[in-house]
Amino acid sequence: MDIESYFDDFEDRDWQRGAEGTLRLAMVGLGWWTTDRAMPAVAETEHCETTVVVSGTKEKAEGVAEEEELAAGITYEEFQNGEASDAYDAVYICTPNATHLENALAAAEMGKDVLCEKPMEGDVERAEEMVEAFEGVDVQLMVAYRMHTEPSVRRMKELVEEGFIGEPLAVHGHMSQSLLEMIPNPDQWRLNPELAGRGTSVTDLGIYPINTTRFVLDTDPVSVTAQMVSEAEGFEDVPDERATMTIDYDGVTASISASQNMYSTGHLKIIGSEGELTLEPCFGNRTARTLELRRNNIETTTVTPQPNQMLEEFAYFADRVLNDDPVHPDGEHGLHDMRTLEAVYDAAETGERQDI
Amino acid sequence: MDIESYFDDFEDRDWQRGAEGTLRLAMVGLGWWTTDRAMPAVAETEHCETTVVVSGTKEKAEGVAEEEELAAGITYEEFQNGEASDAYDAVYICTPNATHLENALAAAEMGKDVLCEKPMEGDVERAEEMVEAFEGVDVQLMVAYRMHTEPSVRRMKELVEEGFIGEPLAVHGHMSQSLLEMIPNPDQWRLNPELAGRGTSVTDLGIYPINTTRFVLDTDPVSVTAQMVSEAEGFEDVPDERATMTIDYDGVTASISASQNMYSTGHLKIIGSEGELTLEPCFGNRTARTLELRRNNIETTTVTPQPNQMLEEFAYFADRVLNDDPVHPDGEHGLHDMRTLEAVYDAAETGERQDI
Repeated sequence: MDIESYFDDFEDRDWQRGAEGTLRLAMVGLGWWTTDRAMPAVAETEHCETTVVVSGTKEKAEGVAEEEELAAGITYEEFQNGEASDAYDAVYICTPNATHLENALAAAEMGKDVLCEKPMEGDVERAEEMVEAFEGVDVQLMVAYRMHTEPSVRRMKELVEEGFIGEPLAVHGHMSQSLLEMIPNPDQWRLNPELAGRGTSVTDLGIYPINTTRFVLDTDPVSVTAQMVSEAEGFEDVPDERATMTIDYDGVTASISASQNMYSTGHLKIIGSEGELTLEPCFGNRTARTLELRRNNIETTTVTPQPNQMLEEFAYFADRVLNDDPVHPDGEHGLHDMRTLEAVYDAAETGERQDI
Repeated sequence: MDIESYFDDFEDRDWQRGAEGTLRLAMVGLGWWTTDRAMPAVAETEHCETTVVVSGTKEKAEGVAEEEELAAGITYEEFQNGEASDAYDAVYICTPNATHLENALAAAEMGKDVLCEKPMEGDVERAEEMVEAFEGVDVQLMVAYRMHTEPSVRRMKELVEEGFIGEPLAVHGHMSQSLLEMIPNPDQWRLNPELAGRGTSVTDLGIYPINTTRFVLDTDPVSVTAQMVSEAEGFEDVPDERATMTIDYDGVTASISASQNMYSTGHLKIIGSEGELTLEPCFGNRTARTLELRRNNIETTTVTPQPNQMLEEFAYFADRVLNDDPVHPDGEHGLHDMRTLEAVYDAAETGERQDI
């Protein structure tokens, strides 16, 4: 890589093909992530527009629709019955994990492209059903791994591909936050396995280092061992207040940890035969990044601005859908993570290595 | 901690009691670590002096003794027979791991204090024998964990003790180097289990993050799972060209990796309920350090000079021995690491969690 273009092109949308028109979006699920992160990003995205919002109660949906001057605010039931479907082209699903499926199925049936939050669903079977629903239809399913369009992650991946660190050999990754400080309610869905999947720290946070390692190395996990502990108040129903995983990415071993009850931080480090790349802080949406490059005895630290992950993600989604080009990460990609999550929880439960 | 004293006292020898006199040392084992690292450090240490060197061949020992104008250069056999024992007060043992015992036993019998390189020995039984030899005698056994006297590690430990990161909850640690680039000889003792112990990457390198975590957290490992792989040329006789361990420090889970066939690097990161401390690069002797402190949304990076780990270690050893004060880390401390190493290799072999 030319060092001048490393600087000049760092934030370039190297994936962009150029689109015409506007992708009109129904935002399904009106939690804080949708209202505070996704909708403001869509508003800034050139070829995207929120036209419909969908929530559990008519009042909430209509309130947001009125405030944002949208075409419609409807309930999940109305959405699934096809109401206001002329007013949007594609759907962003950001409901509790174990309720993604019914909304994705409805969208597929209505011929709407879907951007579905991660993890795809609460269990593997429902994720498989989702993938099947998009086979043989004319619309696409993308899973919202926002690290794939983050500039610093893309540069990290390029450096690995170019051999900057030689052969990748080891990974360290971590993501944590203080969930009950962020959302001081022990009854929230992220702590309820019926809505979140088998746990919370791995499904909601661990999936970031797990998936980003896949993306950067272009290799999938093949087996996993894991340990979990839940002891704090509020974490009675989930096994993974804190989780530690050792994941074999087909010869590259990753040491990954995650917690919903820890200082809010994250990092991703790839060590190879000839060098080392570290992105830190990582995964979160709200801080500047440093990408550290080490090779020989030389170290550089690239400081990059706070990324607008959701804007980049919606811009990518619109670019592909408006061009009728394949999206990535697609449902099949997300399904492999669902199988990995399942293996992580099984490994922690049994104390034994699980193949994926 | 007062922020001004954090800066002013960062490199202070807070352990120093002040000694009188000079500790005369026999250096047992004349590999590159002794000649290039230990002896130059001793020469700079106020209360230390190398007076005798001990090696496998008389020629080598006498050559070094002559060049350095020492009292004597003798063989291991002569050393163990008490030759030149009037010329030194204490012994630094830096022979292949599985040959530490006979030299330590001889020193104990002669009434010489010992600073023994890590790991203490090739297996637990021989380490136990070493510890027993120093029970009921008037001299002490110290294990040469040079991180205990490194200023940045001591400040890290203080910050943890003061609650800067709240409750410590997770650790990431790594150490690697390219052994066959450093010493291009596949017949070297570090790759020979008869001399190195059960492996190479964990015994020689992994022991740094394992032991430094013990020191910083003031907690010992209680159980471990591990995975290892050996596939490169030169690593046929050891199981751990690369090793990945998950170690439970009594409630704090550490993700630790080590390799003798990887880019030369290392880091230690402690994440707590309220903050995060990262020392990087770490463990090696030849680079400046950065100690990163994170708490709230604030991050500071403390850049510290390249430490002279061996000088600090010898200065500490002399300070304690000349004052007739107890040394730390002592043999019992080192023995727990030997049991941990044993458990790591057992865990990798069996695929099962091992209690320590």
